[in-house]
Amino acid sequence: MSVTAAQGFTATGIKAGIKASGNKDLAMVRNNGPRFDAAAVFTSNRICAAPVTWSRQVLADGRVDAVVLNSGGANACTGPEGFADTHHTAEKVGEALDIAPGDVVVCSTGLIGVRLPMEALLAGIDTAAAALSADGGTDAAEAIMTTDTHPKQVTRTVEGWTIGGMAKGAGMLAPGLATMLVVITTDAVVPAGQLQPALRESTRLTFDRLDSDGCMSTNDTVLAMASGASGITPDADAFQRALTEVCHELGQLLLGDAEGASHDIAVRVVNAASEADALEVGRSITASNLFKCAIFGNDPNWGRVLSALGTTGAAYEPDGVDVSFNGVMVCRGGAIGEPRELVDLHPRQVDVLVDLHAGSVEATVWTNDLTYDYVKENAEYSS
Amino acid sequence: MSVTAAQGFTATGIKAGIKASGNKDLAMVRNNGPRFDAAAVFTSNRICAAPVTWSRQVLADGRVDAVVLNSGGANACTGPEGFADTHHTAEKVGEALDIAPGDVVVCSTGLIGVRLPMEALLAGIDTAAAALSADGGTDAAEAIMTTDTHPKQVTRTVEGWTIGGMAKGAGMLAPGLATMLVVITTDAVVPAGQLQPALRESTRLTFDRLDSDGCMSTNDTVLAMASGASGITPDADAFQRALTEVCHELGQLLLGDAEGASHDIAVRVVNAASEADALEVGRSITASNLFKCAIFGNDPNWGRVLSALGTTGAAYEPDGVDVSFNGVMVCRGGAIGEPRELVDLHPRQVDVLVDLHAGSVEATVWTNDLTYDYVKENAEYSS
Repeated sequence: MSVTAAQGFTATGIKAGIKASGNKDLAMVRNNGPRFDAAAVFTSNRICAAPVTWSRQVLADGRVDAVVLNSGGANACTGPEGFADTHHTAEKVGEALDIAPGDVVVCSTGLIGVRLPMEALLAGIDTAAAALSADGGTDAAEAIMTTDTHPKQVTRTVEGWTIGGMAKGAGMLAPGLATMLVVITTDAVVPAGQLQPALRESTRLTFDRLDSDGCMSTNDTVLAMASGASGITPDADAFQRALTEVCHELGQLLLGDAEGASHDIAVRVVNAASEADALEVGRSITASNLFKCAIFGNDPNWGRVLSALGTTGAAYEPDGVDVSFNGVMVCRGGAIGEPRELVDLHPRQVDVLVDLHAGSVEATVWTNDLTYDYVKENAEYSS
Repeated sequence: MSVTAAQGFTATGIKAGIKASGNKDLAMVRNNGPRFDAAAVFTSNRICAAPVTWSRQVLADGRVDAVVLNSGGANACTGPEGFADTHHTAEKVGEALDIAPGDVVVCSTGLIGVRLPMEALLAGIDTAAAALSADGGTDAAEAIMTTDTHPKQVTRTVEGWTIGGMAKGAGMLAPGLATMLVVITTDAVVPAGQLQPALRESTRLTFDRLDSDGCMSTNDTVLAMASGASGITPDADAFQRALTEVCHELGQLLLGDAEGASHDIAVRVVNAASEADALEVGRSITASNLFKCAIFGNDPNWGRVLSALGTTGAAYEPDGVDVSFNGVMVCRGGAIGEPRELVDLHPRQVDVLVDLHAGSVEATVWTNDLTYDYVKENAEYSS
């Protein structure tokens, strides 16, 4: 259900003929009101795709009536012609749904540097507009998949109001904003002025700390739309909590389906002097190819954790750092701890705990291992 | 010949029984004077190995009489006991060669977090001291190899004086200083006060711009020793040029032998507003796993170059960037250029040219592709 779990939303996902595979490739989500509050967080990549440039403008007034998303092409680095393609897409949606094009968010995902097949896309918009339904959430979640192996959906219902979301993304997951498209809907009454900071805070704690392969995409978009159809104004803290939970669960679904990965790795940095320190250390470790290869080899190679830690400016003493893999403290005081042989890294989930002994703040960063299949997927297929 | 090409130096490489493989694992290079000027550049990793901590102290007075290097163990993250091992190593060399232990540089390379087999190492020092010879350069270059597939040596003779060098390093090659051990010798007369800035400048332009896998080691050391045995004081510019050439060639040998690589990639950034900009852009591209996988797949995926560029703060206009692969401008003005099909990426050498059109400065950063074999070597073997 996901994006159609909350009242006031219809959605669909159809085969428009954009993807060579013939799979579903065009999704549409419409907010039927009564309210049209919206917020979004976009990639911080300076080279951003035409749909990101367009959608940033759409969000300026905090109102979104519909979002159209295509897989099969990112429409990034396509010049003025690519921007015109996005503009025509929004106009076509406006015409089909009888709404203002300036209230239509556009998202694209796929190969960079290739024009979209506009004839197929525009025809698909008519088909999609006619197919919108209150139970079209799963179809929409399927239509935004690229190298994802399954659709990703989460819902949360709290005291009469609901939040639901769908996500796609399996590569180019990196700090700043994991590479992905995410659409979140809620029937709670949340004015745009509250929705934007709430979404920013939730993404900061979740998607921003997901770093599958260190690469930041040109198309990342997280869109939240609030219809107010439940008639309920939620407690601000309760809404923030639910929104963060939905973002966290969607993020974990992305992590679990990352290209070619055989392990999901949580690097938890504790007793840091500051959150910035904890994050810098966590990101330095999750960015290390040698560390990620070691995990693929089921090797609790703490030397590679310390090598990465040593490149940071965080507060710690080199001889005061403990590192545990799945609960076994293989490095104590910056030197040799328990025998590596005690660590079992065969389960998919790997927990790395880094204790800096420099304060009382903690943060977790998530990543995947570096595998033959990651190389294969990214060497053999353009994306 | 390498380190023994210059007059005044003897060297050797022997099997001390440190490596399980039984291969050569202990090298020694002695400066027989008449001068003992020395300079060194070490890893900037804050988690540095015991031999780095020791050798920094040795270099404080600019005099080095000998260097002892072992493969088969990094002696990093080994606590106070590991530092004592390095200290004993230097004392033993001092005793064997009748020199001050405080003038003995120690370098180690291999697995982090494991103590060295000191009995074998100390016995090996006696053997090595007795085996020092004026043609032992190649033996020394072989004894410092880890996953290197061949010894790496370069010599340069200019107007009566000579510079020679040996290097090891095949993984953990990263900015700040490529992971490696390098020993450079010269018989030119170069006081330590001139040698240190000259070495810093040469490494800045060469090893610092080599980024095989983004990982910075705990043991990196580049040591230069000048015996003055030629009696010639070289022109400062000529010496700087020759030193940079030797460092560059050694760096290219490291690149060509990087773990599992099938391509050597030069990312040349031109028309940048500053050297810092050119380097930031170059490093962002060479750090991209997606870019490196694409090269492995012989795919001129310029979208991944632009995605990386977009994460930098360098001066450029997104619609003003050109990207060429092996001379074919596949991206022009930030959008679609020549057809990708015109690019042949089958040769080992790949040249990527990024024109920022934002100034007149250029810089080149070198890296390798990301391959199955890189993952295999770093997943299956601890290092």
